[in-house]
Amino acid sequence: MNTKKRIIIVGASGTMGQFLADLLEKENHEIIRVSRTSADIKVDTTSTQSIQEMYEKVGAFDALISTAGSTFVGPWKNLNDKTFRTGVEGKMMGQINLVLIGQHYINPKGSFTLISGALTHEPQLNFANASAANGAVEGFVRAAAVELGNGIRINAVSPTVIESSPQYFPYFPGEIPTTMKQLEFGFKKSLFGRLTGQIIKP
Amino acid sequence: MNTKKRIIIVGASGTMGQFLADLLEKENHEIIRVSRTSADIKVDTTSTQSIQEMYEKVGAFDALISTAGSTFVGPWKNLNDKTFRTGVEGKMMGQINLVLIGQHYINPKGSFTLISGALTHEPQLNFANASAANGAVEGFVRAAAVELGNGIRINAVSPTVIESSPQYFPYFPGEIPTTMKQLEFGFKKSLFGRLTGQIIKP
Ligand SMILES: NC(=O)c1ccc[n+]([C@@H]2O[C@H](COP(=O)([O-])OP(=O)(O)OC[C@H]3O[C@@H](n4cnc5c(N)ncnc54)[C@H](OP(=O)(O)O)[C@@H]3O)[C@@H](O)[C@H]2O)c1
Ligand SMILES: NC(=O)c1ccc[n+]([C@@H]2O[C@H](COP(=O)([O-])OP(=O)(O)OC[C@H]3O[C@@H](n4cnc5c(N)ncnc54)[C@H](OP(=O)(O)O)[C@@H]3O)[C@@H](O)[C@H]2O)c1
Repeated sequence: MNTKKRIIIVGASGTMGQFLADLLEKENHEIIRVSRTSADIKVDTTSTQSIQEMYEKVGAFDALISTAGSTFVGPWKNLNDKTFRTGVEGKMMGQINLVLIGQHYINPKGSFTLISGALTHEPQLNFANASAANGAVEGFVRAAAVELGNGIRINAVSPTVIESSPQYFPYFPGEIPTTMKQLEFGFKKSLFGRLTGQIIKP
Repeated sequence: MNTKKRIIIVGASGTMGQFLADLLEKENHEIIRVSRTSADIKVDTTSTQSIQEMYEKVGAFDALISTAGSTFVGPWKNLNDKTFRTGVEGKMMGQINLVLIGQHYINPKGSFTLISGALTHEPQLNFANASAANGAVEGFVRAAAVELGNGIRINAVSPTVIESSPQYFPYFPGEIPTTMKQLEFGFKKSLFGRLTGQIIKP
Protein backbone atom coordinates (compact mmCIF):
# COMPACT_ATOMS: atom_id res chain seq x y z
CA MET A 1 0.00 0.00 0.00
CA ASN A 2 2.63 2.52 1.10
CA THR A 3 4.66 2.63 -2.11
CA LYS A 4 8.32 3.43 -1.66
CA LYS A 5 8.94 7.11 -1.05
CA ARG A 6 12.00 9.33 -1.04
CA ILE A 7 11.75 11.15 2.28
CA ILE A 8 13.86 13.98 3.68
CA ILE A 9 13.96 14.02 7.48
CA VAL A 10 15.20 17.31 8.88
CA GLY A 11 16.30 16.74 12.46
CA ALA A 12 17.15 13.09 11.79
CA SER A 13 19.81 12.98 14.51
CA GLY A 14 17.32 14.01 17.22
CA THR A 15 15.05 11.96 19.46
CA MET A 16 12.02 11.98 17.17
CA GLY A 17 13.88 12.27 13.88
CA GLN A 18 16.16 9.29 14.46
CA PHE A 19 13.25 7.14 15.58
CA LEU A 20 11.24 8.03 12.47
CA ALA A 21 14.22 7.70 10.11
CA ASP A 22 15.08 4.23 11.41
CA LEU A 23 11.57 2.86 11.19
CA LEU A 24 10.75 4.30 7.78
CA GLU A 25 14.05 2.99 6.43
CA LYS A 26 13.17 -0.49 7.73
CA GLU A 27 9.92 -0.21 5.79
CA ASN A 28 12.00 0.30 2.63
CA HIS A 29 11.58 4.01 2.09
CA GLU A 30 14.61 5.98 0.99
CA ILE A 31 15.56 8.31 3.82
CA ILE A 32 17.76 11.37 3.49
CA ARG A 33 18.92 12.30 6.98
CA VAL A 34 19.43 16.01 7.40
CA SER A 35 20.51 18.27 10.27
CA ARG A 36 23.23 20.78 11.14
CA THR A 37 25.85 18.25 12.28
CA SER A 38 25.85 14.49 11.75
CA ALA A 39 23.77 13.91 8.64
CA ASP A 40 23.74 12.66 5.04
CA ILE A 41 23.32 16.26 3.96
CA LYS A 42 23.75 19.23 6.25
CA VAL A 43 21.35 22.10 6.66
CA ASP A 44 20.85 24.94 9.07
CA THR A 45 17.17 25.81 8.76
CA THR A 46 17.80 29.29 10.18
CA SER A 47 19.46 30.17 6.84
CA THR A 48 17.41 30.32 3.64
CA GLN A 49 20.60 29.89 1.63
CA SER A 50 21.44 26.70 3.51
CA ILE A 51 17.91 25.38 2.87
CA GLN A 52 18.17 26.16 -0.84
CA GLU A 53 21.53 24.37 -1.06
CA MET A 54 20.11 21.35 0.78
CA TYR A 55 17.27 21.01 -1.75
CA GLU A 56 19.69 21.42 -4.67
CA LYS A 57 21.78 18.55 -3.30
CA VAL A 58 18.84 16.28 -2.54
CA GLY A 59 17.06 16.60 -5.89
CA ALA A 60 13.56 15.18 -6.38
CA PHE A 61 11.76 13.86 -3.30
CA ASP A 62 8.27 12.81 -2.24
CA ALA A 63 8.01 13.96 1.34
CA LEU A 64 9.71 16.09 3.93
CA ILE A 65 9.40 15.50 7.65
CA SER A 66 10.73 18.16 9.98
CA THR A 67 11.43 17.43 13.62
CA ALA A 68 13.88 20.33 13.93
CA GLY A 69 12.58 23.12 16.09
CA SER A 70 14.71 24.84 18.70
CA THR A 71 13.01 27.13 21.18
CA PHE A 72 14.03 29.06 24.27
CA VAL A 73 13.20 27.05 27.37
CA GLY A 74 13.64 28.85 30.64
CA PRO A 75 12.16 31.14 33.24
CA TRP A 76 9.72 33.82 32.08
CA LYS A 77 11.96 36.55 33.51
CA ASN A 78 14.60 35.62 30.92
CA LEU A 79 12.17 35.88 28.03
CA ASN A 80 12.78 38.98 25.94
CA ASP A 81 13.01 39.96 22.29
CA LYS A 82 16.43 38.35 22.02
CA THR A 83 15.70 34.98 23.64
CA PHE A 84 12.34 34.83 21.83
CA ARG A 85 14.20 34.78 18.51
CA THR A 86 15.42 31.23 19.24
CA GLY A 87 11.95 29.91 18.51
CA VAL A 88 11.11 32.48 15.83
CA GLU A 89 14.08 31.36 13.76
CA GLY A 90 14.61 27.79 15.01
CA LYS A 91 11.07 26.46 15.04
CA MET A 92 8.84 28.94 13.20
CA MET A 93 10.68 30.52 10.26
CA GLY A 94 13.01 27.53 9.86
CA GLN A 95 10.09 25.22 9.19
CA ILE A 96 8.10 27.80 7.20
CA ASN A 97 11.10 28.40 4.95
CA LEU A 98 11.53 24.64 4.45
CA VAL A 99 8.05 24.75 2.88
CA LEU A 100 8.21 28.09 1.04
CA ILE A 101 11.45 27.02 -0.65
CA GLY A 102 10.78 23.28 -0.78
CA GLN A 103 7.49 23.62 -2.67
CA HIS A 104 9.59 24.32 -5.78
CA TYR A 105 11.55 21.06 -5.38
CA ILE A 106 9.06 18.51 -4.04
CA ASN A 107 7.35 16.05 -6.39
CA PRO A 108 3.68 16.63 -7.29
CA LYS A 109 1.41 15.10 -4.63
CA GLY A 110 4.28 15.30 -2.18
CA SER A 111 3.82 16.10 1.49
CA PHE A 112 5.34 18.30 4.16
CA THR A 113 4.94 17.24 7.78
CA LEU A 114 6.12 19.76 10.35
CA ILE A 115 6.53 19.49 14.10
CA SER A 116 4.42 21.49 16.52
CA GLY A 117 3.48 20.40 20.05
CA ALA A 118 0.70 20.39 22.63
CA LEU A 119 2.09 23.57 24.21
CA THR A 120 0.17 25.59 21.59
CA HIS A 121 -3.02 24.99 23.53
CA GLU A 122 -1.76 23.63 26.83
CA PRO A 123 0.96 25.94 28.11
CA GLN A 124 3.46 25.05 30.79
CA LEU A 125 5.82 27.30 32.74
CA ASN A 126 9.12 27.96 30.91
CA PHE A 127 7.78 27.20 27.43
CA ALA A 128 6.04 30.39 26.21
CA ASN A 129 8.45 30.64 23.29
CA ALA A 130 7.44 27.17 22.09
CA SER A 131 3.72 27.95 22.53
CA ALA A 132 4.10 30.96 20.23
CA ALA A 133 6.29 29.19 17.66
CA ASN A 134 3.91 26.21 17.59
CA GLY A 135 0.93 28.50 17.13
CA ALA A 136 2.65 30.12 14.18
CA VAL A 137 3.51 26.77 12.60
CA GLU A 138 -0.08 25.58 13.02
CA GLY A 139 -1.60 28.76 11.58
CA PHE A 140 0.83 28.53 8.67
CA VAL A 141 0.02 24.87 8.01
CA ARG A 142 -3.70 25.57 7.73
CA ALA A 143 -3.10 28.53 5.42
CA ALA A 144 -0.46 26.82 3.26
CA ALA A 145 -2.86 23.90 2.67
CA VAL A 146 -5.24 26.18 0.77
CA GLU A 147 -2.40 27.73 -1.25
CA LEU A 148 -0.04 24.91 -2.25
CA GLY A 149 -0.39 23.66 -5.85
CA ASN A 150 0.26 20.31 -7.60
CA GLY A 151 -1.57 18.28 -4.99
CA ILE A 152 1.11 19.02 -2.43
CA ARG A 153 -0.10 18.46 1.12
CA ILE A 154 0.99 19.87 4.45
CA ASN A 155 0.24 18.90 8.05
CA ALA A 156 1.78 19.29 11.47
CA VAL A 157 2.12 16.66 14.16
CA SER A 158 1.47 17.97 17.64
CA PRO A 159 2.46 15.50 20.38
CA THR A 160 2.68 16.23 24.03
CA VAL A 161 5.93 15.30 25.80
CA ILE A 162 7.07 12.01 24.28
CA GLU A 163 7.88 8.75 26.01
CA SER A 164 11.54 8.91 24.91
CA SER A 165 12.14 12.31 26.49
CA PRO A 166 11.89 11.55 30.24
CA GLN A 167 14.12 14.56 30.95
CA TYR A 168 11.10 16.76 30.15
CA PHE A 169 8.55 14.89 32.29
CA PRO A 170 9.03 17.18 35.34
CA TYR A 171 8.01 20.17 33.20
CA PHE A 172 4.76 18.50 32.11
CA PRO A 173 2.88 17.64 35.28
CA GLY A 174 -0.25 15.62 34.70
CA GLU A 175 0.63 15.01 31.07
CA ILE A 176 0.43 11.41 29.88
CA PRO A 177 3.39 11.11 27.50
CA THR A 178 2.80 10.43 23.82
CA THR A 179 4.06 6.92 23.09
CA MET A 180 6.53 6.36 20.26
CA LYS A 181 3.90 4.22 18.55
CA GLN A 182 1.45 7.11 18.64
CA LEU A 183 4.14 9.43 17.31
CA GLU A 184 4.90 6.98 14.48
CA PHE A 185 1.24 6.73 13.55
CA GLY A 186 0.78 10.51 13.68
CA PHE A 187 3.53 11.03 11.15
CA LYS A 188 2.32 8.13 9.00
CA LYS A 189 -1.18 9.59 8.88
CA SER A 190 0.28 12.70 7.27
CA LEU A 191 2.78 10.84 5.07
CA PHE A 192 0.55 8.12 3.66
CA GLY A 193 -2.98 9.49 4.07
CA ARG A 194 -4.58 12.31 2.10
CA LEU A 195 -5.06 14.77 4.94
CA THR A 196 -3.94 18.33 4.43
CA GLY A 197 -4.00 21.45 6.60
CA GLN A 198 -4.44 19.33 9.72
CA ILE A 199 -2.82 19.47 13.11
CA ILE A 200 -2.48 15.79 13.98
CA LYS A 201 -2.62 15.02 17.70
CA PRO A 202 -1.03 11.57 17.84
CA MET B 1 -19.10 49.00 37.77
CA ASN B 2 -16.38 49.75 35.23
CA THR B 3 -14.28 52.07 37.37
CA LYS B 4 -12.26 54.61 35.45
CA LYS B 5 -9.17 53.14 33.88
CA ARG B 6 -6.07 54.56 32.26
CA ILE B 7 -5.86 52.69 28.96
CA ILE B 8 -3.15 52.73 26.30
CA ILE B 9 -4.48 51.96 22.83
CA VAL B 10 -1.74 51.02 20.38
CA GLY B 11 -3.08 51.47 16.86
CA ALA B 12 -5.51 54.17 17.96
CA SER B 13 -5.52 55.85 14.54
CA GLY B 14 -6.68 52.67 12.76
CA THR B 15 -10.16 51.33 12.03
CA MET B 16 -10.53 49.29 15.21
CA GLY B 17 -8.31 51.41 17.43
CA GLN B 18 -10.07 54.70 16.71
CA PHE B 19 -13.47 53.12 17.26
CA LEU B 20 -12.41 51.66 20.62
CA ALA B 21 -10.60 54.82 21.73
CA ASP B 22 -13.62 57.02 20.99
CA LEU B 23 -16.12 54.81 22.77
CA LEU B 24 -13.99 54.16 25.85
CA GLU B 25 -13.24 57.86 26.14
CA LYS B 26 -16.98 58.63 26.04
CA GLU B 27 -17.36 56.18 28.92
CA ASN B 28 -14.92 58.34 30.90
CA HIS B 29 -11.81 56.22 30.76
CA GLU B 30 -8.52 57.99 30.19
CA ILE B 31 -7.23 56.98 26.80
CA ILE B 32 -3.65 57.34 25.62
CA ARG B 33 -3.68 57.08 21.84
CA VAL B 34 -0.54 55.53 20.46
CA SER B 35 0.74 54.68 16.96
CA ARG B 36 3.64 55.48 14.63
CA THR B 37 2.20 58.70 13.19
CA SER B 38 -0.76 60.74 14.50
CA ALA B 39 -0.97 59.96 18.22
CA ASP B 40 -0.68 61.34 21.74
CA ILE B 41 2.54 59.39 22.09
CA LYS B 42 4.36 57.75 19.20
CA VAL B 43 5.61 54.21 19.11
CA ASP B 44 6.88 51.84 16.48
CA THR B 45 6.22 48.39 17.92
CA THR B 46 8.86 46.84 15.65
CA SER B 47 11.49 48.51 17.87
CA THR B 48 11.94 47.42 21.48
CA GLN B 49 13.63 50.75 22.21
CA SER B 50 10.63 52.65 20.90
CA ILE B 51 8.31 50.50 23.08
CA GLN B 52 10.44 51.13 26.16
CA GLU B 53 10.40 54.89 25.51
CA MET B 54 6.63 54.84 25.04
CA TYR B 55 6.12 53.19 28.44
CA GLU B 56 8.51 55.63 30.10
CA LYS B 57 6.48 58.54 28.72
CA VAL B 58 3.09 57.05 29.62
CA GLY B 59 3.86 56.15 33.22
CA ALA B 60 1.42 54.05 35.25
CA PHE B 61 -1.56 52.55 33.41
CA ASP B 62 -4.25 49.94 33.97
CA ALA B 63 -4.71 48.37 30.57
CA LEU B 64 -3.18 48.12 27.14
CA ILE B 65 -5.18 47.36 24.02
CA SER B 66 -3.27 46.63 20.86
CA THR B 67 -4.93 46.79 17.45
CA ALA B 68 -1.62 47.30 15.64
CA GLY B 69 -0.65 44.32 13.56
CA SER B 70 0.74 44.68 10.04
CA THR B 71 1.04 41.55 7.93
CA PHE B 72 1.93 40.76 4.33
CA VAL B 73 -1.23 40.42 2.28
CA GLY B 74 -0.75 39.16 -1.25
CA PRO B 75 -0.40 36.20 -3.54
CA TRP B 76 1.25 33.07 -2.17
CA LYS B 77 3.94 33.23 -4.88
CA ASN B 78 5.20 36.46 -3.31
CA LEU B 79 5.46 34.92 0.14
CA ASN B 80 9.06 34.32 1.15
CA ASP B 81 11.32 34.82 4.15
CA LYS B 82 11.49 38.56 3.46
CA THR B 83 7.78 39.28 3.01
CA PHE B 84 6.94 36.95 5.91
CA ARG B 85 8.89 39.25 8.25
CA THR B 86 6.16 41.92 7.91
CA GLY B 87 3.89 39.84 10.11
CA VAL B 88 6.66 38.43 12.30
CA GLU B 89 7.72 41.93 13.32
CA GLY B 90 4.50 43.90 12.76
CA LYS B 91 1.93 41.61 14.34
CA MET B 92 3.76 38.90 16.28
CA MET B 93 6.92 40.26 17.93
CA GLY B 94 5.51 43.81 18.06
CA GLN B 95 2.65 42.69 20.27
CA ILE B 96 4.71 40.16 22.22
CA ASN B 97 7.28 42.84 23.03
CA LEU B 98 4.49 45.20 24.16
CA VAL B 99 3.74 42.58 26.81
CA LEU B 100 7.26 41.43 27.70
CA ILE B 101 8.32 45.04 28.26
CA GLY B 102 4.97 46.41 29.44
CA GLN B 103 4.59 43.91 32.29
CA HIS B 104 7.18 45.97 34.17
CA TYR B 105 5.13 49.17 33.82
CA ILE B 106 1.48 48.09 34.06
CA ASN B 107 -0.41 48.42 37.36
CA PRO B 108 -1.11 45.26 39.39
CA LYS B 109 -4.30 43.57 38.16
CA GLY B 110 -3.84 45.34 34.82
CA SER B 111 -4.71 43.73 31.51
CA PHE B 112 -3.23 43.31 28.06
CA THR B 113 -5.61 42.74 25.16
CA LEU B 114 -3.96 41.88 21.86
CA ILE B 115 -5.39 41.57 18.37
CA SER B 116 -5.48 38.26 16.52
CA GLY B 117 -8.09 37.27 13.89
CA ALA B 118 -10.19 34.39 12.60
CA LEU B 119 -7.52 33.59 9.97
CA THR B 120 -5.69 31.55 12.61
CA HIS B 121 -8.21 28.77 12.15
CA GLU B 122 -10.04 29.78 8.99
CA PRO B 123 -7.46 30.60 6.35
CA GLN B 124 -8.15 32.58 3.19
CA LEU B 125 -6.02 32.96 0.07
CA ASN B 126 -3.44 35.78 0.37
CA PHE B 127 -3.35 35.81 4.18
CA ALA B 128 -0.96 33.01 5.22
CA ASN B 129 1.31 35.52 6.92
CA ALA B 130 -1.56 36.70 9.13
CA SER B 131 -2.59 33.11 9.94
CA ALA B 132 0.91 32.40 11.23
CA ALA B 133 1.28 35.69 13.13
CA ASN B 134 -2.15 35.23 14.71
CA GLY B 135 -1.31 31.67 15.73
CA ALA B 136 1.85 32.93 17.41
CA VAL B 137 -0.02 35.68 19.26
CA GLU B 138 -2.65 33.19 20.46
CA GLY B 139 -0.08 30.63 21.61
CA PHE B 140 1.79 33.39 23.41
CA VAL B 141 -1.35 34.72 25.11
CA ARG B 142 -2.20 31.31 26.56
CA ALA B 143 1.37 30.83 27.80
CA ALA B 144 1.81 34.37 29.16
CA ALA B 145 -1.38 33.97 31.20
CA VAL B 146 0.23 31.23 33.29
CA GLU B 147 3.43 33.26 33.75
CA LEU B 148 2.42 36.88 34.40
CA GLY B 149 2.55 38.00 38.04
CA ASN B 150 0.69 40.61 40.13
CA GLY B 151 -2.73 39.54 38.89
CA ILE B 152 -1.96 40.87 35.42
CA ARG B 153 -4.22 39.36 32.78
CA ILE B 154 -3.82 38.84 29.05
CA ASN B 155 -6.26 37.93 26.28
CA ALA B 156 -6.55 38.28 22.54
CA VAL B 157 -9.59 39.31 20.55
CA SER B 158 -10.05 37.35 17.35
CA PRO B 159 -12.70 38.83 15.05
CA THR B 160 -13.34 37.83 11.49
CA VAL B 161 -13.43 40.65 8.91
CA ILE B 162 -15.14 43.61 10.59
CA GLU B 163 -18.16 45.55 9.43
CA SER B 164 -16.13 48.77 9.05
CA SER B 165 -13.62 47.20 6.66
CA PRO B 166 -15.73 46.57 3.53
CA GLN B 167 -12.58 46.75 1.40
CA TYR B 168 -11.68 43.28 2.76
CA PHE B 169 -15.07 41.65 2.16
CA PRO B 170 -14.08 40.24 -1.27
CA TYR B 171 -11.24 38.30 0.38
CA PHE B 172 -13.57 36.70 2.93
CA PRO B 173 -16.23 34.86 0.94
CA GLY B 174 -18.99 33.41 3.05
CA GLU B 175 -17.82 35.25 6.12
CA ILE B 176 -20.47 37.15 8.08
CA PRO B 177 -18.61 40.30 9.21
CA THR B 178 -18.07 40.93 12.90
CA THR B 179 -20.20 43.93 13.88
CA MET B 180 -18.60 46.88 15.64
CA LYS B 181 -20.84 46.16 18.62
CA GLN B 182 -19.47 42.62 18.79
CA LEU B 183 -15.94 43.98 18.53
CA GLU B 184 -16.64 46.46 21.35
CA PHE B 185 -18.02 43.73 23.59
CA GLY B 186 -15.10 41.40 22.79
CA PHE B 187 -12.60 43.98 23.98
CA LYS B 188 -14.73 44.91 26.99
CA LYS B 189 -14.91 41.28 28.06
CA SER B 190 -11.14 41.27 28.31
CA LEU B 191 -10.84 44.77 29.79
CA PHE B 192 -13.51 44.59 32.47
CA GLY B 193 -13.98 40.86 33.09
CA ARG B 194 -11.58 38.53 34.87
CA LEU B 195 -10.73 36.27 31.94
CA THR B 196 -7.12 35.50 31.22
CA GLY B 197 -5.34 33.41 28.59
CA GLN B 198 -8.44 33.44 26.41
CA ILE B 199 -8.90 33.99 22.69
CA ILE B 200 -12.16 35.93 22.59
CA LYS B 201 -14.22 35.42 19.44
CA PRO B 202 -16.48 38.45 19.51
N1 LIG C 1 10.78 15.69 22.82
C1 LIG C 1 9.53 15.93 23.21
O1 LIG C 1 9.02 15.43 24.22
C2 LIG C 1 8.69 16.86 22.37
C3 LIG C 1 7.30 16.90 22.55
C4 LIG C 1 6.54 17.75 21.75
C5 LIG C 1 7.17 18.54 20.80
N2 LIG C 1 8.51 18.48 20.66
C6 LIG C 1 9.16 19.29 19.61
O2 LIG C 1 9.65 18.40 18.65
C7 LIG C 1 10.86 18.90 18.07
C8 LIG C 1 11.91 17.81 18.10
O3 LIG C 1 12.08 17.34 19.39
P1 LIG C 1 13.25 16.32 19.75
O4 LIG C 1 13.11 16.00 21.18
O5 LIG C 1 13.30 15.24 18.74
O6 LIG C 1 14.51 17.33 19.55
P2 LIG C 1 16.08 16.97 19.53
O7 LIG C 1 16.32 15.60 20.07
O8 LIG C 1 16.76 18.12 20.17
O9 LIG C 1 16.42 16.93 17.97
C9 LIG C 1 16.40 18.10 17.18
C10 LIG C 1 16.93 17.74 15.82
O10 LIG C 1 16.87 18.90 14.98
C11 LIG C 1 18.17 19.21 14.50
N3 LIG C 1 18.25 20.67 14.42
C12 LIG C 1 18.12 21.57 15.44
N4 LIG C 1 18.22 22.82 14.98
C13 LIG C 1 18.41 22.72 13.63
C14 LIG C 1 18.60 23.67 12.60
N5 LIG C 1 18.63 24.99 12.84
N6 LIG C 1 18.78 23.22 11.33
C15 LIG C 1 18.75 21.90 11.07
N7 LIG C 1 18.58 20.95 12.01
C16 LIG C 1 18.42 21.36 13.29
C17 LIG C 1 19.14 18.58 15.49
O11 LIG C 1 20.38 18.22 14.91
P3 LIG C 1 21.65 19.23 14.88
O12 LIG C 1 21.85 19.75 16.27
O13 LIG C 1 22.75 18.38 14.34
O14 LIG C 1 21.26 20.30 13.89
C18 LIG C 1 18.37 17.30 15.81
O15 LIG C 1 18.56 16.37 14.76
C19 LIG C 1 11.17 20.17 18.84
O16 LIG C 1 10.70 21.28 18.10
C20 LIG C 1 10.36 20.06 20.10
O17 LIG C 1 9.92 21.33 20.58
C21 LIG C 1 9.28 17.65 21.41
N1 LIG D 1 -10.01 45.15 9.71
C1 LIG D 1 -10.46 43.90 9.78
O1 LIG D 1 -11.49 43.52 9.17
C2 LIG D 1 -9.74 42.92 10.66
C3 LIG D 1 -10.35 41.71 10.98
C4 LIG D 1 -9.67 40.80 11.79
C5 LIG D 1 -8.40 41.13 12.26
N2 LIG D 1 -7.84 42.32 11.91
C6 LIG D 1 -6.52 42.67 12.44
O2 LIG D 1 -6.69 43.74 13.33
C7 LIG D 1 -5.57 44.61 13.30
C8 LIG D 1 -6.05 46.05 13.12
O3 LIG D 1 -6.86 46.14 11.98
P1 LIG D 1 -7.34 47.57 11.47
O4 LIG D 1 -8.21 47.31 10.27
O5 LIG D 1 -7.86 48.38 12.61
O6 LIG D 1 -5.93 48.17 10.97
P2 LIG D 1 -5.57 49.63 10.49
O7 LIG D 1 -6.81 50.43 10.20
O8 LIG D 1 -4.56 49.49 9.40
O9 LIG D 1 -4.89 50.28 11.77
C9 LIG D 1 -3.65 49.85 12.23
C10 LIG D 1 -3.22 50.77 13.37
O10 LIG D 1 -1.99 50.31 13.88
C11 LIG D 1 -1.00 51.34 13.78
N3 LIG D 1 0.27 50.68 13.50
C12 LIG D 1 0.60 49.91 12.43
N4 LIG D 1 1.86 49.46 12.53
C13 LIG D 1 2.34 49.95 13.70
C14 LIG D 1 3.59 49.84 14.36
N5 LIG D 1 4.62 49.12 13.85
N6 LIG D 1 3.74 50.48 15.54
C15 LIG D 1 2.73 51.19 16.07
N7 LIG D 1 1.53 51.33 15.49
C16 LIG D 1 1.34 50.72 14.31
C17 LIG D 1 -1.50 52.25 12.69
O11 LIG D 1 -1.07 53.59 12.79
P3 LIG D 1 0.31 54.14 12.17
O12 LIG D 1 0.32 53.75 10.72
O13 LIG D 1 0.24 55.61 12.42
O14 LIG D 1 1.40 53.49 12.95
C18 LIG D 1 -3.01 52.20 12.94
O15 LIG D 1 -3.32 53.06 14.03
C19 LIG D 1 -4.66 44.06 12.20
O16 LIG D 1 -3.66 43.27 12.81
C20 LIG D 1 -5.56 43.16 11.40
O17 LIG D 1 -4.85 42.06 10.85
C21 LIG D 1 -8.49 43.21 11.13
